[in-house]
Amino acid sequence: MQLNPEVLQKLTNILGESYIFTDQETRNHYGQDETEDYVFPPNVVVKPANAQEISAILKIANEYKIPTTPIGARTGLSGGALSVYEGIGLSTERLNKILDIDEQNLQVTVEPAVITQVLREAVAEKGLFYPPDPSSQGSCWIGGNVAENAGGSRAVKYGVTKDYVLNLEVVLPNGEIIWTGANTLKNSTGYNLTQLMVGSEGTLGVITKIVMKLLPKVSHNVLMLVPFYKASQACEAVSAIFRAGIIPSALEFMERDAIDWTLKYNHDISVTVKDEVQAHLLIEVDGNYPDILMQEAEKIMEVVEQFEIDEVLFADTEDQKNALWKMRRSVAEAVKANSVYKEEDTVVPRYNLPELLGGIKRIGAKYGFKSVCYGHAGDGNLHVNIIKGDMTDDNWQTQVPLGIREIFELTVSLKGTLSGEHGIGFVQKNYMDIAFTKTHLEIMSRIKSVFDHNNILNPGKIFPDEF
Amino acid sequence: MQLNPEVLQKLTNILGESYIFTDQETRNHYGQDETEDYVFPPNVVVKPANAQEISAILKIANEYKIPTTPIGARTGLSGGALSVYEGIGLSTERLNKILDIDEQNLQVTVEPAVITQVLREAVAEKGLFYPPDPSSQGSCWIGGNVAENAGGSRAVKYGVTKDYVLNLEVVLPNGEIIWTGANTLKNSTGYNLTQLMVGSEGTLGVITKIVMKLLPKVSHNVLMLVPFYKASQACEAVSAIFRAGIIPSALEFMERDAIDWTLKYNHDISVTVKDEVQAHLLIEVDGNYPDILMQEAEKIMEVVEQFEIDEVLFADTEDQKNALWKMRRSVAEAVKANSVYKEEDTVVPRYNLPELLGGIKRIGAKYGFKSVCYGHAGDGNLHVNIIKGDMTDDNWQTQVPLGIREIFELTVSLKGTLSGEHGIGFVQKNYMDIAFTKTHLEIMSRIKSVFDHNNILNPGKIFPDEF
Repeated sequence: MQLNPEVLQKLTNILGESYIFTDQETRNHYGQDETEDYVFPPNVVVKPANAQEISAILKIANEYKIPTTPIGARTGLSGGALSVYEGIGLSTERLNKILDIDEQNLQVTVEPAVITQVLREAVAEKGLFYPPDPSSQGSCWIGGNVAENAGGSRAVKYGVTKDYVLNLEVVLPNGEIIWTGANTLKNSTGYNLTQLMVGSEGTLGVITKIVMKLLPKVSHNVLMLVPFYKASQACEAVSAIFRAGIIPSALEFMERDAIDWTLKYNHDISVTVKDEVQAHLLIEVDGNYPDILMQEAEKIMEVVEQFEIDEVLFADTEDQKNALWKMRRSVAEAVKANSVYKEEDTVVPRYNLPELLGGIKRIGAKYGFKSVCYGHAGDGNLHVNIIKGDMTDDNWQTQVPLGIREIFELTVSLKGTLSGEHGIGFVQKNYMDIAFTKTHLEIMSRIKSVFDHNNILNPGKIFPDEF
Repeated sequence: MQLNPEVLQKLTNILGESYIFTDQETRNHYGQDETEDYVFPPNVVVKPANAQEISAILKIANEYKIPTTPIGARTGLSGGALSVYEGIGLSTERLNKILDIDEQNLQVTVEPAVITQVLREAVAEKGLFYPPDPSSQGSCWIGGNVAENAGGSRAVKYGVTKDYVLNLEVVLPNGEIIWTGANTLKNSTGYNLTQLMVGSEGTLGVITKIVMKLLPKVSHNVLMLVPFYKASQACEAVSAIFRAGIIPSALEFMERDAIDWTLKYNHDISVTVKDEVQAHLLIEVDGNYPDILMQEAEKIMEVVEQFEIDEVLFADTEDQKNALWKMRRSVAEAVKANSVYKEEDTVVPRYNLPELLGGIKRIGAKYGFKSVCYGHAGDGNLHVNIIKGDMTDDNWQTQVPLGIREIFELTVSLKGTLSGEHGIGFVQKNYMDIAFTKTHLEIMSRIKSVFDHNNILNPGKIFPDEF
């Protein structure tokens, strides 16, 4: 499809020539994110400066019924930012300012294209704490975090992105600009449009300002790495730690392969792992009182020692802590560097993790694929990297989707669902029938129509091709 | 309006004669809640046993287009359960079981008609903690808490009802029964129907099962009552406590009048208050380590001593703690027993509290009414009880609504909104234009239509009569 020259002219009138791109290189660049190796270039990339320009663009898109895809940092893992029907690729990159850090109310107002880590560091300088920390925090943007309801390692204690969003300025598909709620911690005033927008993957509106709550900064933490001889026992220990009354600030699971591949990929990290070790838990507790943290760490030790474990590694220095976190955060990259792969983002109630893990391996064996599993075990959120390895292209195309379907069926049967923090986007949409009935999907589809009658905003996402 | 005898027959076929009531006494009883002195009896009261019966009732209501109002404990303060268009009053009282306390996953599955305090105590027996504690916790039901997104005193640290709801079984107005989400702590799978349902005040569906997350039980707390010579300084101290890095588990504000009226009403509570004291803060910190709590209490003392305060009262025993909490929780009842009144539920970012309080008094003086203010100051949630006292009926009818409108305009101008935890219901609906534009209200109204095409479920709530 070519873009109507009249549309291009109108877009140029709004933005000026410097912020419109139709060259192949730019279109390709904005046509991909971190989702496998997909490339879906839009016909034109636009870079508006503010909500008013976005409004004007969406009015044109509506008039000419042109698919329009909001594009953030393109670090997504579900293809939410891919222009699968071409059209307009709307990059929010120029909305990149922290507008206000409100130290009186412990709130921040921020534009979508601020890097999550930059936001976290900026508020930390004022003694404040923004907890959500996706593994991609060094490159992802806060707007995308809101759109996908991103999580991270600290979600187990502090919650996910949605738990920090108080109010959103949003440009609706018809060009109207609204604030979804109020800048308050509590709100029982009408339907919760704020939470409807969070996690809607850019299909209901373009987020242009975000008001988030913050916490007072937490000063101390203790980090330990626990090697388990049995992966299933590592999963069991997760639930046991909570039952002992501890809420860790992070509780991460890594299968043996995840560590091996990461150590191979990251030569500057060194951790010795015995041959017999099948999995690790990376456990952090945080707080303002070091003595208490040591007591909690001891309680955790009492719990994990009930399982078959090797010697526990305590990170004594900031450097050691950073190395362990770097190891955890590089797993996805390491797997990606090693093989063609597909990443799923299963989530179940945490006690059901051992059953999920066992099931994934069984299903892999049935369909002939290996998987590397790791993730936020404290939340029951297990990332499943399915490895192509030496599978034939034919089996990769035909068998793997059947296996993924079975993994999701298992997940849902364990009271879980398809995605904990990556979103459904493009790559999971045809599994939605597993988690939802036709009635559900119709309700969601009609809600989509309430906001976007012409289905111009990020079409081809969330909803299955047929339902 | 009389109910069509055919409908009555069909309802009887579903429920049997024992669970259908058309006598005036029952209808009056179910036609009122705790909202001022309103009585709106339904034509018939039905008491279904389960989701299937509710489904059958709603199918009939839809077929005959009969207004149907879900009715819980009738402790609401915004008139959400009033059958303002008569029709069917659907009491959920028979859905009153705690179905499962899942100690492995720290979750509970509960039916809507369980008293909140009963739920809190049942999970506490298993060493678990359900934090939300509305003042009416001894009589309100968890289903109503979900419908109104109820808060309470511990919300300042632990969040409100919405923060604990993971998944809901809901009967839709067309009779279909769905689960809104999954039993997981994280979920990025499609639009957040769970959070759309929470706080929707029984207008989108009838909640029949609730899956909630729980926390490990917290063992200790310290409670103190701080008398301030200036009410505005009490408000200022609220924000200062957070800036000192403390997150109290409760931070309640009571104006002088609130305490005086309560002590007059509750003869078994005794607190000595000096004449010069204008307001109190009731402050609690909680945790598992008593030494740390004492340190935090000292830090709070350092903060409040920067203001003009009288001697701080520390509650040394459980009895003293209970007495102070009883005092705080009886304010609304005490005011109600003293005068005809109207209660508003304003909420602002907490630093803006002093300005809100000052403005309310100024507006009261302008329109000739007194107000008693108290509430969850840590959340910026100020309850405003407007007292009729010796106002003429005429002024009460004509002047007070103008004053309330001005109070809400002030609230919104301070980045706040109409209701923090009571809901909009019947009595605040005609102020919604202050918080929302026509576009907003149309979006909410179209969302209502997605769920309830015939507008049978709890009509006359949330939406202004004209917009």
